[in-house]
Amino acid sequence: MLRMAEPIIHHRHVEFKELFNRVSANLRYLFQTSSDVLTLTSSGTGAMEAAVSNLHSAGESALYVNGGKFGERWGELLAAYGVQGIELKIEWGEALSTEEILNALQAHPTVKAVYLTQSETSTGAATDVQALAAAVRKHSQALVVVDGITAVGAMELRMDDWGLDVVVTGSQKGLMIPPGLAFLAISRRAWASVEQARLPRYYFDLIRARKSLASKDTPWTPAITLVEGVDVALEMIRKQGIEAVWKRHARLARSIREAAQALGLKILARHPSNALTALWIPESVNAKDFNDVLKNKYGITVAGGQGHLKGKIFRISHLGYYDELDMISMISALEMTLMELGYRFEAGAGVRAAQKVLTKDEEAR
Amino acid sequence: MLRMAEPIIHHRHVEFKELFNRVSANLRYLFQTSSDVLTLTSSGTGAMEAAVSNLHSAGESALYVNGGKFGERWGELLAAYGVQGIELKIEWGEALSTEEILNALQAHPTVKAVYLTQSETSTGAATDVQALAAAVRKHSQALVVVDGITAVGAMELRMDDWGLDVVVTGSQKGLMIPPGLAFLAISRRAWASVEQARLPRYYFDLIRARKSLASKDTPWTPAITLVEGVDVALEMIRKQGIEAVWKRHARLARSIREAAQALGLKILARHPSNALTALWIPESVNAKDFNDVLKNKYGITVAGGQGHLKGKIFRISHLGYYDELDMISMISALEMTLMELGYRFEAGAGVRAAQKVLTKDEEAR
Repeated sequence: MLRMAEPIIHHRHVEFKELFNRVSANLRYLFQTSSDVLTLTSSGTGAMEAAVSNLHSAGESALYVNGGKFGERWGELLAAYGVQGIELKIEWGEALSTEEILNALQAHPTVKAVYLTQSETSTGAATDVQALAAAVRKHSQALVVVDGITAVGAMELRMDDWGLDVVVTGSQKGLMIPPGLAFLAISRRAWASVEQARLPRYYFDLIRARKSLASKDTPWTPAITLVEGVDVALEMIRKQGIEAVWKRHARLARSIREAAQALGLKILARHPSNALTALWIPESVNAKDFNDVLKNKYGITVAGGQGHLKGKIFRISHLGYYDELDMISMISALEMTLMELGYRFEAGAGVRAAQKVLTKDEEAR
Repeated sequence: MLRMAEPIIHHRHVEFKELFNRVSANLRYLFQTSSDVLTLTSSGTGAMEAAVSNLHSAGESALYVNGGKFGERWGELLAAYGVQGIELKIEWGEALSTEEILNALQAHPTVKAVYLTQSETSTGAATDVQALAAAVRKHSQALVVVDGITAVGAMELRMDDWGLDVVVTGSQKGLMIPPGLAFLAISRRAWASVEQARLPRYYFDLIRARKSLASKDTPWTPAITLVEGVDVALEMIRKQGIEAVWKRHARLARSIREAAQALGLKILARHPSNALTALWIPESVNAKDFNDVLKNKYGITVAGGQGHLKGKIFRISHLGYYDELDMISMISALEMTLMELGYRFEAGAGVRAAQKVLTKDEEAR
């Protein structure tokens, strides 16, 4: 986006205030909330830290779901700040059920918050945030905090309707711009906790950020060129309509899943995310050869597995800028790579299955 | 810089590692150090927080010099993290003497660190970091931490020769690129403190950053487009030579100061910074009119005073991209504005005084 290379406006000037006001309003639309959405200059992890350091005081406890690298990060953050993190560990690729969350709340009735991950990037698993949040809200006072880093803008998320308290995301995922900004949406109920929270924080102090937001500014100099980029992205999303954006991601994701099935490739996640798909590399195929052919012959870099899944899975992103033909190209490169490596399947079956999906309109979710 | 609008490279790819390795090496040159320089995605304040949260454990104490908004920020950060901050308050525009720092160290011999501000942006005052650091190192074990946010790249700073332990800066000042990155240089002696420090931190955890630096990476997704921008800026500084860059800033700053004197305008700071100059608005001139004419007629926005100096001073930046003719334009606009507002002086005297300086070579410092 060329706008990000134009001369820089100063963040205390009126031009920035107008821009930032429009961005903040469009962010509320993105998160489907009438509450504040704060803009932080950091990666998404910075916004996750802001949630933890602003909601708690020393000695409190919180539940967190660990089904992969990013769920695990909630646990690391809670530990770093001396909050007792009660881990709900699930198999990588699995998602937590409402029954499991209710059992955990019964066993730990005083937890201050429940930390979820809507789209677990290390496994491609989706969490039914709507159902879990409803269960939590019905049976407890715990705040519901959601890592929406690869979910926001890709999967249905209705902060107010679903009763979510904090949702965080980053700039380089569903918002399609370079990394460097993070966003944190926060409910009125959560603000009450922030006002009482006593953990140390300064750069990520949300009360300072709220005060600045009221005068259309940020407490510290923001990454202005990225704010300009996100303005363009949000106007685009607003124009298309958020439901249409969710539907597009659902359709692209389904095309990959149907193609995988037609090729006999297994999906890791039982409830897959619409932001990315993690597939098992067939046993007959060497992982290194697979990545090398994809990259060197077709210019496609797929993400590998992390932790114990290293060398066993590959992950395809379909979040953000991608369109129908990107999916077809990807599947076709995948077919040609598998062919070259001796994996047996009906050539063209993946592309055909994807085309079938991509010519239909798809329901969101 | 158009390079910041090009397609984004992924931070785990080899292209990024090469870029980041070159940037990290050039940052060591910028800070004149053989120690690590870490790149953080945040404003300069984030790097200031990283210094505080990584050096201390609860219950420790530290000295900080408060001669303006940014010195005050060290105090706020120490307080936010429960470190006892012992304030050395000086008049705005003044600088601390070595005698004063030695007296303070004698009164508080157990302080863990001394926090300085090389160029106090709210007043345009410069601190003689070299002399203060030498005094501290000679008489105590305290770490020397320097806010170099408007100083690095504008004023002489030799981290290793001067025995500094931590120096921080931001991307949008001496490095001339948009805001969003901060840099923190850290001595071997300071690393020993970081390893023992027990304050909570995660996003700004410097040990994680050091570990990633060893594999030419950052722990969290960095603001990649800004890293590309800073690469260009650092190559430029390296080509000119850091001494030449310091000298250019010294010459530009002196041209403004000589012009001010020729116009009868008083400089706020007794030891002025080469990054910016704060001048008193003449008593006969209304501050609002002054700013309005400068902005509306000549398109120049000067920064005003903060705190008790609001409406009393104006601050001219000469940090980063500025050249000789920018200074002449600025001084000329200043003369014409003062003329229009009835302030009496010899027309052209400011420009003439500046020209005299700008045609000479100037010593650094």
